[in-house]
Amino acid sequence: MKIKVINPNTTMDMTEGIGEAARSVAGAGTEIVAVSPEFGPESIESFYDEQVAACGVLDEVRKGETEGIDAYVIACYGDPGLHAAREVTERPVVGIAEASFYTASMVAARFSIVSVIPRVRTLLEEMVHGYGMSERIIAIRTLPLYVLDIERDPEGSMEKLRDEVRRSVAEDDAEAVCLGCAGFARFAAELEAELGVPILDGVVCATKQAELLVGLGLKTSKRKTYRPPERKRFTGMFSHFGTADDIAEAAE
Amino acid sequence: MKIKVINPNTTMDMTEGIGEAARSVAGAGTEIVAVSPEFGPESIESFYDEQVAACGVLDEVRKGETEGIDAYVIACYGDPGLHAAREVTERPVVGIAEASFYTASMVAARFSIVSVIPRVRTLLEEMVHGYGMSERIIAIRTLPLYVLDIERDPEGSMEKLRDEVRRSVAEDDAEAVCLGCAGFARFAAELEAELGVPILDGVVCATKQAELLVGLGLKTSKRKTYRPPERKRFTGMFSHFGTADDIAEAAE
Amino acid sequence: MKIKVINPNTTMDMTEGIGEAARSVAGAGTEIVAVSPEFGPESIESFYDEQVAACGVLDEVRKGETEGIDAYVIACYGDPGLHAAREVTERPVVGIAEASFYTASMVAARFSIVSVIPRVRTLLEEMVHGYGMSERIIAIRTLPLYVLDIERDPEGSMEKLRDEVRRSVAEDDAEAVCLGCAGFARFAAELEAELGVPILDGVVCATKQAELLVGLGLKTSKRKTYRPPERKRFTGMFSHFGTADDIAEAAE
Amino acid sequence: MKIKVINPNTTMDMTEGIGEAARSVAGAGTEIVAVSPEFGPESIESFYDEQVAACGVLDEVRKGETEGIDAYVIACYGDPGLHAAREVTERPVVGIAEASFYTASMVAARFSIVSVIPRVRTLLEEMVHGYGMSERIIAIRTLPLYVLDIERDPEGSMEKLRDEVRRSVAEDDAEAVCLGCAGFARFAAELEAELGVPILDGVVCATKQAELLVGLGLKTSKRKTYRPPERKRFTGMFSHFGTADDIAEAAE
Amino acid sequence: MKIKVINPNTTMDMTEGIGEAARSVAGAGTEIVAVSPEFGPESIESFYDEQVAACGVLDEVRKGETEGIDAYVIACYGDPGLHAAREVTERPVVGIAEASFYTASMVAARFSIVSVIPRVRTLLEEMVHGYGMSERIIAIRTLPLYVLDIERDPEGSMEKLRDEVRRSVAEDDAEAVCLGCAGFARFAAELEAELGVPILDGVVCATKQAELLVGLGLKTSKRKTYRPPERKRFTGMFSHFGTADDIAEAAE
Amino acid sequence: MKIKVINPNTTMDMTEGIGEAARSVAGAGTEIVAVSPEFGPESIESFYDEQVAACGVLDEVRKGETEGIDAYVIACYGDPGLHAAREVTERPVVGIAEASFYTASMVAARFSIVSVIPRVRTLLEEMVHGYGMSERIIAIRTLPLYVLDIERDPEGSMEKLRDEVRRSVAEDDAEAVCLGCAGFARFAAELEAELGVPILDGVVCATKQAELLVGLGLKTSKRKTYRPPERKRFTGMFSHFGTADDIAEAAE
Repeated sequence: MKIKVINPNTTMDMTEGIGEAARSVAGAGTEIVAVSPEFGPESIESFYDEQVAACGVLDEVRKGETEGIDAYVIACYGDPGLHAAREVTERPVVGIAEASFYTASMVAARFSIVSVIPRVRTLLEEMVHGYGMSERIIAIRTLPLYVLDIERDPEGSMEKLRDEVRRSVAEDDAEAVCLGCAGFARFAAELEAELGVPILDGVVCATKQAELLVGLGLKTSKRKTYRPPERKRFTGMFSHFGTADDIAEAAE
Repeated sequence: MKIKVINPNTTMDMTEGIGEAARSVAGAGTEIVAVSPEFGPESIESFYDEQVAACGVLDEVRKGETEGIDAYVIACYGDPGLHAAREVTERPVVGIAEASFYTASMVAARFSIVSVIPRVRTLLEEMVHGYGMSERIIAIRTLPLYVLDIERDPEGSMEKLRDEVRRSVAEDDAEAVCLGCAGFARFAAELEAELGVPILDGVVCATKQAELLVGLGLKTSKRKTYRPPERKRFTGMFSHFGTADDIAEAAE
Repeated sequence: MKIKVINPNTTMDMTEGIGEAARSVAGAGTEIVAVSPEFGPESIESFYDEQVAACGVLDEVRKGETEGIDAYVIACYGDPGLHAAREVTERPVVGIAEASFYTASMVAARFSIVSVIPRVRTLLEEMVHGYGMSERIIAIRTLPLYVLDIERDPEGSMEKLRDEVRRSVAEDDAEAVCLGCAGFARFAAELEAELGVPILDGVVCATKQAELLVGLGLKTSKRKTYRPPERKRFTGMFSHFGTADDIAEAAE
Repeated sequence: MKIKVINPNTTMDMTEGIGEAARSVAGAGTEIVAVSPEFGPESIESFYDEQVAACGVLDEVRKGETEGIDAYVIACYGDPGLHAAREVTERPVVGIAEASFYTASMVAARFSIVSVIPRVRTLLEEMVHGYGMSERIIAIRTLPLYVLDIERDPEGSMEKLRDEVRRSVAEDDAEAVCLGCAGFARFAAELEAELGVPILDGVVCATKQAELLVGLGLKTSKRKTYRPPERKRFTGMFSHFGTADDIAEAAE
Repeated sequence: MKIKVINPNTTMDMTEGIGEAARSVAGAGTEIVAVSPEFGPESIESFYDEQVAACGVLDEVRKGETEGIDAYVIACYGDPGLHAAREVTERPVVGIAEASFYTASMVAARFSIVSVIPRVRTLLEEMVHGYGMSERIIAIRTLPLYVLDIERDPEGSMEKLRDEVRRSVAEDDAEAVCLGCAGFARFAAELEAELGVPILDGVVCATKQAELLVGLGLKTSKRKTYRPPERKRFTGMFSHFGTADDIAEAAE
Repeated sequence: MKIKVINPNTTMDMTEGIGEAARSVAGAGTEIVAVSPEFGPESIESFYDEQVAACGVLDEVRKGETEGIDAYVIACYGDPGLHAAREVTERPVVGIAEASFYTASMVAARFSIVSVIPRVRTLLEEMVHGYGMSERIIAIRTLPLYVLDIERDPEGSMEKLRDEVRRSVAEDDAEAVCLGCAGFARFAAELEAELGVPILDGVVCATKQAELLVGLGLKTSKRKTYRPPERKRFTGMFSHFGTADDIAEAAE
C-alpha cells in the first residue's frame, strides 16, 4: 500500500520530519511518500496561508491519481482542502486534525488542543465546531511560536509546548492532548512518557487511519457531496486544474 | 466610494450581470468595479471549484489595495475566501451569502435558500451552520441546473427557479427566499413581484452592506483572527502571494 | 426617507442623544424622527421594564403608519417588541442589538458585548442564543452602572465603560465590542479611536440597516410569522390597540 | 394555599374553563382564583397579542401581592411575561407551556405540541428552543382554528384537535402530546382515554407544579435575573407600574 | 399512594436518610418505602458503579410491580437506569437529577450543581447535555469528598459543601444550586437558610414530582421508547430478569 | 495482538458470526477472541436489555485483564457499557457504533443508520447526539425486524435491510450507511457491491480501530473520567465486581 502524505507547506525539512513520523508507525507493507506541493506558502498560520496551500494539496492529490497512490494524508492541522480533495479522488483522504479527534475520542472523554500562534484559534474553533467535537474538546490553547520556529529551534519549541500541554492537563483537566501542528510530531512520544496521558500527533493518527480505510477496501462515497468535480474549463495559472476528464471518468 | 465586486469564476458574461445587479442598487457616489480573477474555474459548483476560485478572490483583493478600492464583495454563494480576504485588507469584505442571511433576518423570521445542482447542499449546510443560522434557515433546496445554464438558457432557468421558490414558500412555509447563486440576481425582482415574499439576491444585499460599512467608517478588525497574514515566502506559481510586506505594514 | 427611531424608555434627554446618533450617520435624504412612547418606564433594566416598554414601542409603530414613516428602529439593546412590531407594519423594523450583531459579524470573527447592570446578562444571553450568535459573541460583560447614570454622569460612565471594553479586548480577546445600551452611543467613536478595534453602537448600525432595507425596497414578509395581528377586541387601557382593521387591511 | 391562575386574555368564558381545569386537580387545601387582566386582547394568537397581554399578567401578579396569593400560573401557551413576573414577586410563577414540557419529559421520551392557527409556530419554536427542549419535542403541529373558535364551537374544535393529535401520534411517532392552548384543557382527558398516550394540558400541569413549589417552600431566586425590578418612574397609562417600592422592599 | 424510593447503592444508613428526606415532604396520604437493591455497590462514583447499580434499580422496580407501588424514585444523582426502568413499568419513574433540574428551572434562570469527587463531572456533563439543560446549568462543581464520607463525617462534609455552594453563588453567579448527591439531602434546608437562594435536593424534588404525576393519573407512555421490554430469555445470574411476561402483558 | 470481541448478548450463533466478521479483517498477527457474557439477555433491543447486558460486558472486560487481552470491542450497536469498561482497563475499548461513525466520517459527508425494531430509535438518537454526530447523521431508519430474526431468517432479513438501505440512499440522500446491528455484519459487503456507497459494519470498523489503537501504543487515559473505579464493596450477586484492587492498582 502506498500512502502519499502531503505537507501542505513548502518547507522540505518539515516534510521530511512528517514523512519520518508517518514511517515510524506505518505497517510493514506500507510505503510512505512524503511531499510538499510545488507551490504555496512555506508555513500555514492563517486563513490566507491555508487557502493558498489547499490548492497545492489538490495538485498533489491529482498527480497522485497516476502515481499508484492508495490513500492520502493532509498533514496540516487545519485539514486544508479536505472536502475538495475527496471530490478529486475516490481513494481515501484523511486530515490530521480529524484523525486526531476521532482517535483521541476512543481513549479520552475530554481532551484539548495545543497549537501555534494565537491567531489560529478561530480557525481551530470553526473546525472543531464543524466536526461536532465542541463537547469533547474542552480547550484550545495556543503558543507564542511560529511554525518555522519549530524547525529553527526544536529545543526551545519543546519547552514552550511542554509547559502549555502540562498547563492544559492541570488547568483544563484535559484527559488527552492533541498536538495542533504537524511540526510537533517529533515531540509526542516524549510528552506522553512525561505526562502520562495520551498525546495525539495527527500525522501518526492519520497515517494509521488511512491504512485502516485502505485495509477495509473503503472508498470515498461518490454520491452527492464528494462526486467528482463537474468538468469545466479553468483558466490562467490553474488551467491544468480543469482537464478533469480522467478524474470524473474514474468515478463514473 | 469604489466597491470591487469580485465574481470568483471566470465567466465574463456572468461578471457583467453581477456588475449590473450591483450598480442597480449602488448609491449615487458609488463606483462599482466588477471583475473576475485572471485564473480559476468558469463556474463554482463544488468544494474543489470553490477552493481554487478562492485564490483568485485573494488575488483580486490584493490588487485592489493599490486600486483605490473602499470595499470588496465576494459574489459567489459560498463566500469563498471570505476569512482569508479579511486578513489581506482592512477594508470591508462582504460575502453575498452572509449578506443575504443578515438582510433576510431583518424582514423574515424563517427563510430558505434555493440553489443550483444538488451537490452544493453540503457546502451550503456547513456554511449555514457556521454562521449560526440553522434555526432561521428552514430549508435548503437545489435545482437540476448548472451555473452556466443560467447564462445559456435564462428563460428555462427562470422556470425551474420559479417552481422551486414557489414550492419552498408553499411546502417549507418559507417567509422569504434567498437565491443561492449570483447568477440568479436578474430574477429576484420578478419573483418577488409574483410571490409576494422577500426574494433576496445576495449581490444586491452585499453591495449595500459594503456601502453601509464604508459609510460608517468601519474597518475589519485587525486583532487576532483577521490580522494581516504573517510575512513569509510563497513559492512556485504563488510566489507573488508572499510579498505581503505592504499588506502587513498597512495594518500595523 | 423618514425613519422613526423609537427610544423605548421615556427619558427625553436620552431620546435626543439617540436621535443625534442616528442623524450623525443618516443619508442626505433621510429624516430621523426620534421619539419616546407616551407611556412606560424611564429606563429599561429588567424583563419587567422591557415587557412594559414593548407596548410603548408598539404604540409608536402603530402611530407611525399614518405619519409617513418608511422604517422603524427600536433603540434599546434588548430589541423589545421587535417580533410584534413586525406584525404591525410591513415597513422594515430593525432592533439595535440585531443590527449591531450583523454589522459586527462582517468586520470581526469574534466579538463581545459590554452592557449596564449585571442583571441584564440573562436577558442578553437569551437574545444572543435566539439570534444564533452564541459562537461569535464570546463574552457578555456588565458594568455597575444604571442606564440613567449615563445621562447624569457621562464622564464617570465613560470611565467605567472604557475600562471594561479594554478588559474585554485584552482578556476575552474580543476583536470588536458591541455597546450594550443605546445610551452609550456617544462614546463609540472615542473608544474606537483609542482601542483600535471596531466599537459598534447599535443605534448607528440600526439606522443604516433600516436605510438599507428601505433602499432595497424590502418589506417585512407577511407570510406566517409576521402576518398582521388577527383582528380582535382589546379591552381596558389597551382598547385602542384592538382597532387593527387598518393594519390588517394594509397587508392583505 | 391560594393559587392565582391568570388567563392572560380577557375572554371570561375561557377564564372560567381554565379555573375549572385547575380546580379539578387542585389539592384539598388549595383555593384557585382564576382571573383575566382588566385590559388586553380577547385572545392571544401573535407576538403582538402576547406582548400586550403580558402587561396584563404583570398587573395581576402585582395585585396578587396584597391578595394573599401563594403562587401564580400564567395560563397561555406562550408563557407571556413569565420572566418579568418572576421579578415582581418572590412567590412561584409557573407557565403552562414549561409545566407541560417538564411534566411530559417525565412520562415520555419524545413528544409533540398541537396548537392553534399556523402563525403561532414560530412563537412556539423559539420558546421550545429557549427551554432547551428541541431534542425532545419532535414536532409542532398547528390547526386551522382560532382560540375563540374553541369557545364558540367546542365540538368542531374537538374534531380538529383529535384528528391532528392522532396524526401526531401516528406520523411523528409522538409518545405524548402537549395541548398548545389553554382552551384545550377540557379535551385532554377524553383524548388520553381514546389514544392511550399521555395528553398534557398545561393548566393542569402548571397548577400542580405551583402547588409543588409552594409545598416545598421554594421561592423564586432573587439573585441576579429575577431581582425585583429597579425602582423607577413609569409614565402615562403605566404610571402605577412604577410605584414598585413595596415589591422591591419585599425581597430585600 | 405508595412511592418506592430506591437508593441505588447498598449503604443502608444512606437509604434511611433518603427515606427520611422523602417522608419530610411527602403528602399526608403518601407512604414512602425506601429501599436499596439486594446487590450492587455501596456507593456510586463512576460509570462502572452506576452501570452495575442500574441493574439493582431495575430489580427493585420489577419487584415493586407486585408490591402495590404507585411510583418510583431513583435516588442517585446520575439517574441510573431511568430509561430502562420506564420500560419495565407504566407507573411513573422519576430521577432525582431530572427532578431537581425541572424544579430549579421554575425558580431560577441560571443555576449550578455541586457534587462529589471530580471524576463525576463527565457523567454529569453528559446527563445535563442529554436533558437539554446546558444553557441553564452554568457550572458543575465537584468536591474532594467520597459519597461515604458524608455518612462518616457529616460535619466535615457540610463544611466542604457549604464552601463550594457559597463559591458557586459568588463566582458562577448561580441563582440556585442543585445538590449533586442524594447524601446531601440533609444539608439543603440549612444551606438555603444561610445563603438565601434556592438549594435543591433531588430526593425531595423527585418525591414531590412523583406524587404530582400519580395525582394527575399520568402513566409512562408505552408508545415506542418505553414499551415493555421485548420478551426474551436472560441467562446466568440475570435469568429472573427475563420472565418478563407479566410486565409485557400489563401494558398491552 | 489479542482482541476480545464481546457480543453483549448471549446468543452464541451471533457471537460466532461476529467473530468471523472480526477475523475477516484482522491483521496477520491479530487473534480474535469472540465471547458472550455468562449472563444477560439473548438479544438487545431496549434500554432494559442494554442496561443488563452492559454488566456482562464489564464482567468480560474484567476477566480479560488476566487473559492477555490487548484491546476490547463491544459488539452491540448501542455501545453498552463503553464508558464503564474504559474505567476498568487501560487497554483500549472500542464500541462498534462509535467506530462506524468515525470511519464513515472519513469517507462520506452525510450518512445514515439503518437498525432493527422501531423502539431503538430513541436509544440511537441519544447516542448520536452524545457523540456530536447530529449534523452528519442525517437519518436513522428502523426495520420491522427483531435481532434474533437475523439468525432465524437471514435471507428475509437481508431483503428488508436491502430495501431500507436503498431507500435511505434514495430518499435521505445518504452518502454512506451504517448498519445499526452487529447481526448485520454478514450483509455489508453484498450491499456495498450492490449500492455503490460505503456500507459500514461496526464490528469490522471497531476491530480495525482497536488494532490501530494498540498499534500506536495508545492506552485509555486514566486522568479524571476513566480513572479506575474507586475501591469499594459490592454486595449480592455482584460481590465479585467489588474486588477491584487489581484493576485499581494496575493503573496507579
